Amino acid sequence: MFEARLVQGSLFKKVLDAIKDLVNEANWDCSATGLSMQAMDSAHVSLCFIDLNAEGFDPYRCDRNLTLGLNINNLSKIMKCAANDDVVTIRAEDNADAVNLIFESPNQEKVSEYSMMLMNIDSEHLGIPETEYSATIKMPSAELQRICRDLSQIGDSVTITCVKDSVRFSSSGELGSGNVSLRENTSVDKEDDEVSIDLHEACNLTFASRYLNFFTKATPLSNTVKLSLKSDVPLVVEYKVGDIGSIKLV
Amino acid sequence: MFEARLVQGSLFKKVLDAIKDLVNEANWDCSATGLSMQAMDSAHVSLCFIDLNAEGFDPYRCDRNLTLGLNINNLSKIMKCAANDDVVTIRAEDNADAVNLIFESPNQEKVSEYSMMLMNIDSEHLGIPETEYSATIKMPSAELQRICRDLSQIGDSVTITCVKDSVRFSSSGELGSGNVSLRENTSVDKEDDEVSIDLHEACNLTFASRYLNFFTKATPLSNTVKLSLKSDVPLVVEYKVGDIGSIKLV
Amino acid sequence: MFEARLVQGSLFKKVLDAIKDLVNEANWDCSATGLSMQAMDSAHVSLCFIDLNAEGFDPYRCDRNLTLGLNINNLSKIMKCAANDDVVTIRAEDNADAVNLIFESPNQEKVSEYSMMLMNIDSEHLGIPETEYSATIKMPSAELQRICRDLSQIGDSVTITCVKDSVRFSSSGELGSGNVSLRENTSVDKEDDEVSIDLHEACNLTFASRYLNFFTKATPLSNTVKLSLKSDVPLVVEYKVGDIGSIKLV
Repeated sequence: MFEARLVQGSLFKKVLDAIKDLVNEANWDCSATGLSMQAMDSAHVSLCFIDLNAEGFDPYRCDRNLTLGLNINNLSKIMKCAANDDVVTIRAEDNADAVNLIFESPNQEKVSEYSMMLMNIDSEHLGIPETEYSATIKMPSAELQRICRDLSQIGDSVTITCVKDSVRFSSSGELGSGNVSLRENTSVDKEDDEVSIDLHEACNLTFASRYLNFFTKATPLSNTVKLSLKSDVPLVVEYKVGDIGSIKLV
Repeated sequence: MFEARLVQGSLFKKVLDAIKDLVNEANWDCSATGLSMQAMDSAHVSLCFIDLNAEGFDPYRCDRNLTLGLNINNLSKIMKCAANDDVVTIRAEDNADAVNLIFESPNQEKVSEYSMMLMNIDSEHLGIPETEYSATIKMPSAELQRICRDLSQIGDSVTITCVKDSVRFSSSGELGSGNVSLRENTSVDKEDDEVSIDLHEACNLTFASRYLNFFTKATPLSNTVKLSLKSDVPLVVEYKVGDIGSIKLV
Repeated sequence: MFEARLVQGSLFKKVLDAIKDLVNEANWDCSATGLSMQAMDSAHVSLCFIDLNAEGFDPYRCDRNLTLGLNINNLSKIMKCAANDDVVTIRAEDNADAVNLIFESPNQEKVSEYSMMLMNIDSEHLGIPETEYSATIKMPSAELQRICRDLSQIGDSVTITCVKDSVRFSSSGELGSGNVSLRENTSVDKEDDEVSIDLHEACNLTFASRYLNFFTKATPLSNTVKLSLKSDVPLVVEYKVGDIGSIKLV
């Protein structure tokens, strides 16, 4: 028996919104330590890692390890049926062929219960190799989303150039070229507005605008985002999922 | 001469919004007691009844009974030209071939006058047979709209099961199944948030999601909605039109 | 070298939004007195004049007269990359083949720089002949936009009839006819709500709804709009661009 109850159910709605355009189907691994998902996007270009800690749920019960193979688009449709203030419970019997999603309104007067068939999905366990990145940037997530959206008007790829004290995003295409520079700024009133750069080596890397726009769909999850850059290694874009976990897009 | 002036003109806008996707054309009957409309939807599956009492208008004048045959889509387009705070007057001469709609801004500085051709529409007078329903449910209208929208993601039909103290809406389809249970709750702070169930006999009836979604387009008219259920009898969904009348969808 | 820095950069965004559906490409003339643009719409039916005074910019520098031929749609795309509170600078070297647009965030932490290729555009210098108009109407811009939108539901053209103390907009088509009358009203609390009519001769003129809807896309630029009418002369619709200039649509 697996059961995980999330009081701030809207977080799980936002997780699904973040990945539903990227991932078609995926295995969710349930263990004593939490719930995690690893998947490639349907074009096999990017990877998506989600980790939600057992401590973030109340209660969290996982009698033995389970793998729940789920169609992400269908799961997202069902999660849309949860109100933003609903408490969300995910429940599966051992060896069951379905997962149950239960949404309870805060006043307990409305209870919705959805059942969704499980799938058998082939997957290899993937990981992000441990590496020391040349640059790690923490910045407001809405700013990153805005920059990626703006520059994708200009060209199909975005180059991120990180030097001491500043990061520059640039693109060029038929209508011209554009670049956006952010200065490191750690003396702001709100920590979430901070732009901080942890630089070991200046770097200059290019990524597809299309995937950056996919990745930044996770923006509603967190006010800040962390970018990790290194030559010949994929960009890692990481958002916190409240204080219960994280989503990494690679 | 027929003339009916509605100070809260937005109500008439909302009535048209409620039925414009359901009804193509309809006769509006004007009599000394008020304005009423009965129509079948274009697929001849559902019925729509609107009653607006003479007392709700100021002034209301109907020298002799008139039938105004109107294209509902065109009438809706014209009603969109009224501002939400406009006073709306409907006026028709006896034996006229057109109806006039006059919109006055609250400060009287702007007056709009639209004229729309009348149509000859064959129609039989329809009615909802008097019957004692097995269950009558009063609930927040936005809640019903949300439930119908959510469950239409799951399947083409929605089953309403009413037992003592609770009502359950359920649906199933390719992606799984879902149900939403509401508990009777009459001790809420705001009367509009109440869910009350008047039950004579437990019942379990199935309706097309598509029509429930059409019916709940009337939601902006009223904070609450009344559902009347009985085996082998169509569901009646009723919304108040402010305090001047009602719309019943069957 | 040409450089014009506009602190209220959103005004330039709104200017582009106003004309982008009307004008494909246009020459912007830069001189010591300011920045101006004259263009015909792509169907060669209407004219668009923009004048932005040098005094509205800080600083404004124009070493010698320049003509910047620009694709308006591309320019609009780039201006969408400016935040509403950004300071916008337009910069071009003499004999350059590109123009630069620089957007600075209020806190100076974010600087965006876009470069856009210039085009060679044939154009004749056009002007609005000096004439004494029969009627000049000043009214709230949102009201004009609403009236044009409403009446374009009714018919393809709108007739404006101006008599002493009132102006009437009317249209007719397949679904019926409609007219909207505004009374002169200069004793309102807010000057922007004023409807004032300066009448030399009653007039009655007809214009295409389609173009009135194009013209009223400039509505966000100003709370008020001025209409100038005279028989056998095109209608002039004029909006202020903040206090730095104006846009005239003819």
